[in-house]
Amino acid sequence: MNELQKKDLQYIWHPCSQMKDYEDFPPIVIERGKGPYLIDVEGNSYLDAVSSWWVNLFGHSNERINQALKRQLEKLEHVIFANFSHEPAIELAERIVQITPPGLNKVFFADNGSSAVEAALKLSFQYHQQTGNAKKTKFVAITDAYHGETLGSLSVGDIDLYSKIYKPLLLQTYKAKGPDCYRCPYGNERDTCSAECFEHMEKLAGKKHEEICGVIIEPLIQCAAGMKIYPPVYLKKLRKLCDKYDIHFIADEIAVGFGRTGKMFACEHAGVSPDIMCLSKGITAGYLPLSLVVVTDEIYDAFYCEYTELKAFLHSHSYTGNPLACAAACETLNIFEEENVLEKNKEKSKLISDIVRDAFDDHPYVGEFRQLGMVGALELVEDKETGKGFDWKKRVGYQIYKIAVKKGVLLRPLGNVIYFMPPYVVEEKDIRFMVKIACQSINEYFGL
Amino acid sequence: MNELQKKDLQYIWHPCSQMKDYEDFPPIVIERGKGPYLIDVEGNSYLDAVSSWWVNLFGHSNERINQALKRQLEKLEHVIFANFSHEPAIELAERIVQITPPGLNKVFFADNGSSAVEAALKLSFQYHQQTGNAKKTKFVAITDAYHGETLGSLSVGDIDLYSKIYKPLLLQTYKAKGPDCYRCPYGNERDTCSAECFEHMEKLAGKKHEEICGVIIEPLIQCAAGMKIYPPVYLKKLRKLCDKYDIHFIADEIAVGFGRTGKMFACEHAGVSPDIMCLSKGITAGYLPLSLVVVTDEIYDAFYCEYTELKAFLHSHSYTGNPLACAAACETLNIFEEENVLEKNKEKSKLISDIVRDAFDDHPYVGEFRQLGMVGALELVEDKETGKGFDWKKRVGYQIYKIAVKKGVLLRPLGNVIYFMPPYVVEEKDIRFMVKIACQSINEYFGL
Repeated sequence: MNELQKKDLQYIWHPCSQMKDYEDFPPIVIERGKGPYLIDVEGNSYLDAVSSWWVNLFGHSNERINQALKRQLEKLEHVIFANFSHEPAIELAERIVQITPPGLNKVFFADNGSSAVEAALKLSFQYHQQTGNAKKTKFVAITDAYHGETLGSLSVGDIDLYSKIYKPLLLQTYKAKGPDCYRCPYGNERDTCSAECFEHMEKLAGKKHEEICGVIIEPLIQCAAGMKIYPPVYLKKLRKLCDKYDIHFIADEIAVGFGRTGKMFACEHAGVSPDIMCLSKGITAGYLPLSLVVVTDEIYDAFYCEYTELKAFLHSHSYTGNPLACAAACETLNIFEEENVLEKNKEKSKLISDIVRDAFDDHPYVGEFRQLGMVGALELVEDKETGKGFDWKKRVGYQIYKIAVKKGVLLRPLGNVIYFMPPYVVEEKDIRFMVKIACQSINEYFGL
Repeated sequence: MNELQKKDLQYIWHPCSQMKDYEDFPPIVIERGKGPYLIDVEGNSYLDAVSSWWVNLFGHSNERINQALKRQLEKLEHVIFANFSHEPAIELAERIVQITPPGLNKVFFADNGSSAVEAALKLSFQYHQQTGNAKKTKFVAITDAYHGETLGSLSVGDIDLYSKIYKPLLLQTYKAKGPDCYRCPYGNERDTCSAECFEHMEKLAGKKHEEICGVIIEPLIQCAAGMKIYPPVYLKKLRKLCDKYDIHFIADEIAVGFGRTGKMFACEHAGVSPDIMCLSKGITAGYLPLSLVVVTDEIYDAFYCEYTELKAFLHSHSYTGNPLACAAACETLNIFEEENVLEKNKEKSKLISDIVRDAFDDHPYVGEFRQLGMVGALELVEDKETGKGFDWKKRVGYQIYKIAVKKGVLLRPLGNVIYFMPPYVVEEKDIRFMVKIACQSINEYFGL
């Protein structure tokens, strides 16, 4: 261990970590980044195959975004965002309204994904309180959902690993059994089914709609659940159901937005407009914390009245609308437009697909390879016939992660799901390297 | 209204705002900042007397912090903070441990104040679950507390304006009647009392301690409540009480930390170490969202074990430990050290005090001027004899705010409390201008 690693372990409590694990896997101290690579203080480089928790789009230390931030630094780093404003926020809001699905017309700002989800829940609840539906006080999510770590956002999540211990602190919410396409109980295929599994949501809403404010969902990919991909038809049905029962469709596009699924926003695959959309992560291309909650005029209007009626949305965070983060976000949108990113990503997605299939077809422990746009995932299983997974205590994914890091690829699997979610700047050689190392690491672990 | 203002109102939902208010008070579009001044797109300047929601310390577009950020941009904008690390975070964590009260030895990172409070609550709860006190599931705050806007942090708040409507979504918490020094029910004075009002906390803890995880408190100033200042002896008593009953003392120094009260952290006035300290706002001198939760070894150790025991703290935010924000924070600490900030602020605090007292002594509507360090507050009342406040519907503070903005000072009062919390770079002329405009605006409103 070098001095920096020792200091790190002396002072820092890392996120989403059992710190005891760091005893034999000390923190890797990154000094600089370039493109999709991270370089540590000892000169080792790592291909960032997870885009540093799904945030980086255009590579580390991106020249265009660096320049945009330097320009903004010369003008204004921050200003209170109540009664005050600035050009980067105005430009960003206008462009976000233009590119998000129709009907999403007003932009509320926050700092991180969890806070955006919290604001979305509060907005939905308060809307119904103020429009004569005071009985609507409950939220629905689907099984295996993940929406963040603050207590409100954790309450609409359904991954025990993150939330179980906090149960006495959590809001009571409903969970509808969601899609499980790899192990479809109906025996259907993802590409051809009619989302028969939507019956669970239908049943729940049928019974409880009078008390339901909103349904929150990660469109098309349940990322934290292990990149579980499900078809757009589920979202179409959800939109109809929400319309029927005056329930808000809250799309959590924090991880899947900004091109990850092949379209700018995942909802576009289904041609649906949610009532509320949460955005974060890729919005600054991986530079700075920023999140947005984009809503319909109908919602905005339900809060618009004389102050003394006390119907305003009094949510705030100190750094709401931070000009530096907004400047990074505006430049991110410039890159999307000027560099034809979504079109180029189509080829890259195809490359990922081809190269992964070449490497893993007939692999004895790969139960499924699933992919949507720039997200590809290998689910490792003990038994391909039955789809039976490995005992979680073996920490198969974690062991493979440790092997791959030594070989120069940062994979950080979710349980036993090894996934590829690289920055969009990866080239063919990077993709080949990423998949080769993943394959070598998996085989090394299994002694193949 | 200029074009930017029109666009702003078309697309942006501002925080903590009744948007209808913006019809006759359109958003002021700031183009640049310099020192304590903000300059709008039309060339008007505004003295930022509230440090843009209590975050700015060393002026807008500060040359030193700009340079630090530019250097960091050339190296690394961000990297996943699980299993990975970087120098700015390591340096920051080490220095924070060195300057925070003794015993606070481990640093957990988040993005904003609310998220830090959420992490603190989860840590405290989980600690007790994992150390044989599973019955401890409740939190205590004091009346008029404010700890943020996400549902967990809102649950420990006690300002109806922000939380009342969300009651069905909030966690059940206990509120102990807190200090109210301006209208002290015991007839005591802030500087000489023994915090007799602590009896309420004592009584509550005496009865409920078996179910109490932690007490969360804003040390010495309840900022959102209207800069309510109370004496250090309250915190001394709280420390003893928490020790007696195995309750965590959670200090929310988000607003009062980093020199606002005259010492680096407000807890220092009382000579107490909390078990958990939340920091944000001034930590980046007003540049970027970043928050820290600093805890004792005892807490850290209760989570440290084999992964399979499932005792880890699995909280995370994507941008946890953001290198840009950490670089701004490190430079902030450099400025504190190298520019002798706390010492210089003593003179500035004295100046604020003298100038305000000169201007407002015997003012017919100023019930109290209270001050601690770089925070000064005037509470406007209808009746000085009885301390009776104005009807909130008159929005006295808001009307004065609108007058002062036109005269070039950004005050943004809390209810009817006009406060001064300027960046530390204000000079005597700025302080004189700030107080003069406040006085003129108040008098103009009252027709004096």
